[in-house]
Amino acid sequence: MKLTNGKKTMLDDLQEGIKRAYPSLEHVAGTRGFIRRGFKDDIVPLISGGGSGHDPAHWGFVGDGMLAGAVSGELFVPPSAGDIVEVTRKLTGRKRVFYIVKNFERDVDEFCKARLFLENAGWKVGMAIVKDDISVDTESFEKRRRGVAGTVFFHKILGDYARNGASVEELQKVADELSENVKTIGVAFSGDNFSLGEDEIFYGIGIHGEEGYRRERFESSERLARELISKLRLSFGFKPQDAYAVLVNSLGGVTKMEQLVFSNDVCELLEAEEVSVVFDKTGTFLTSFGLRGISLTLLRIEDENWLKALKAEVDAPEW
Amino acid sequence: MKLTNGKKTMLDDLQEGIKRAYPSLEHVAGTRGFIRRGFKDDIVPLISGGGSGHDPAHWGFVGDGMLAGAVSGELFVPPSAGDIVEVTRKLTGRKRVFYIVKNFERDVDEFCKARLFLENAGWKVGMAIVKDDISVDTESFEKRRRGVAGTVFFHKILGDYARNGASVEELQKVADELSENVKTIGVAFSGDNFSLGEDEIFYGIGIHGEEGYRRERFESSERLARELISKLRLSFGFKPQDAYAVLVNSLGGVTKMEQLVFSNDVCELLEAEEVSVVFDKTGTFLTSFGLRGISLTLLRIEDENWLKALKAEVDAPEW
Repeated sequence: MKLTNGKKTMLDDLQEGIKRAYPSLEHVAGTRGFIRRGFKDDIVPLISGGGSGHDPAHWGFVGDGMLAGAVSGELFVPPSAGDIVEVTRKLTGRKRVFYIVKNFERDVDEFCKARLFLENAGWKVGMAIVKDDISVDTESFEKRRRGVAGTVFFHKILGDYARNGASVEELQKVADELSENVKTIGVAFSGDNFSLGEDEIFYGIGIHGEEGYRRERFESSERLARELISKLRLSFGFKPQDAYAVLVNSLGGVTKMEQLVFSNDVCELLEAEEVSVVFDKTGTFLTSFGLRGISLTLLRIEDENWLKALKAEVDAPEW
Repeated sequence: MKLTNGKKTMLDDLQEGIKRAYPSLEHVAGTRGFIRRGFKDDIVPLISGGGSGHDPAHWGFVGDGMLAGAVSGELFVPPSAGDIVEVTRKLTGRKRVFYIVKNFERDVDEFCKARLFLENAGWKVGMAIVKDDISVDTESFEKRRRGVAGTVFFHKILGDYARNGASVEELQKVADELSENVKTIGVAFSGDNFSLGEDEIFYGIGIHGEEGYRRERFESSERLARELISKLRLSFGFKPQDAYAVLVNSLGGVTKMEQLVFSNDVCELLEAEEVSVVFDKTGTFLTSFGLRGISLTLLRIEDENWLKALKAEVDAPEW
């Protein structure tokens, strides 16, 4: 069971709940979009979005030092290009904006349509297409490199750059550099769209109920951490003295105790590999409606300023 | 399955995870206690505690404007009086302290033993025994008025008073006044210690796996909100113009979307009763290991200063 009033009104009820709970967010009428109340457009507004069902992504990251706006569509369906443009114009008339988009075909399509429309009206539009999910990693499946929890690192780092006055070009440069350095892998413990035994876990699931690549019996947090790190090690090619930021994200239903136990195992294993953990955070950042599971994101710190940006204070409700 | 390395090391692993994740907390060696790093004992230290298994209670509320320290025991077992004294002495030698204790027999016993010990050594010790759970409400069961999520309101309000220099006597007075004005009722959707059908919910469960008072088919968030409010209405006796603070607490596994949908239903129903909602917050504050469920706490604002204290900024990691 889900504590809602049914799927029909769920997103409208959620919207009312957000409006009530977070006075710092302003709803954009006619859309499932929220903007930062009182946003001053002397900086480039950063906007993210995608399908609903990933709460608190992305509205939870609207605030000083992160996003200026977030726009959702229906459950697992991206917002229309029209809604994206609407939210953008509500934030600024200064004809520049930066979008952060998860790499799903329909999401990218709608944001690109919005960009094209605005560019034709003389806007400068930057865009980060986040493709941090390494669970399907062969070349032939390249297009399935989905955007998942690592997206929140983009919100945080680009958000700090934007707050400090970065131009669209400067944001684009940072986003492009980040792109190869953020990698995520997720695991489901249960999901509405597939059945798993009580002690079975599913590696490499997506955030829209997509199945993973391997089922396995759960043994322990430490064993799971070891498996995910070995995939990430292969993908990054760890070198001693490399510095990493760690994000342990509940995809839904994972308790604070579990997050902390798992994160501790991850950090211990990384330290055993002699790479250094310079930032670590646990929480519920980007979920998948109907899923219980966890994801592990690593960011290789190639630039000291990224770390500074990660650590900067923000007032976004869910960071 | 639980994302741990088994019950044997779970609390030790958690402790390591907390130490790593929250540099603002300092572990008190030889105990499951944490204190605020750099706490200045020119104010009365506020300490809470109880069994483990309620994360992020209570360590998550250690910080400026809330608790000075938190001390846990084993899973669902309170800390020993000795551990309580140890954590207290680590915070101050100024011979005054204030404890916030949930009303469970063993918890109260240990904290009272610690108080007696310190009083014999010349200390002044205040104590709030929180008994906000109204799910068992008949006179013969008075002793079962357990302390649950409303405890976090005590942390927040007394924490602000303490920060502003309140004496032990002043804290005691506020605690006593709060006591009759904080009420909670909880519902389980699933639990390790009892079996429920897929759509069945259990009213009035405890936070240690205790069974509730009635099983019922889940219909909707709004219907559940109505049921819980009707119990709270009876207990408070709502009057128009009454002002209430609302806390919607995940007892485990309830998503942000669910929290916000439910909280919105609660607030709408309260407003329909013409009582005014002056504060509302959703989140994961006090959980019960092995449970999925939610609790609703109301605080009747009898003193404007309580509301000011509730709204004051803090830096505790999980408020």
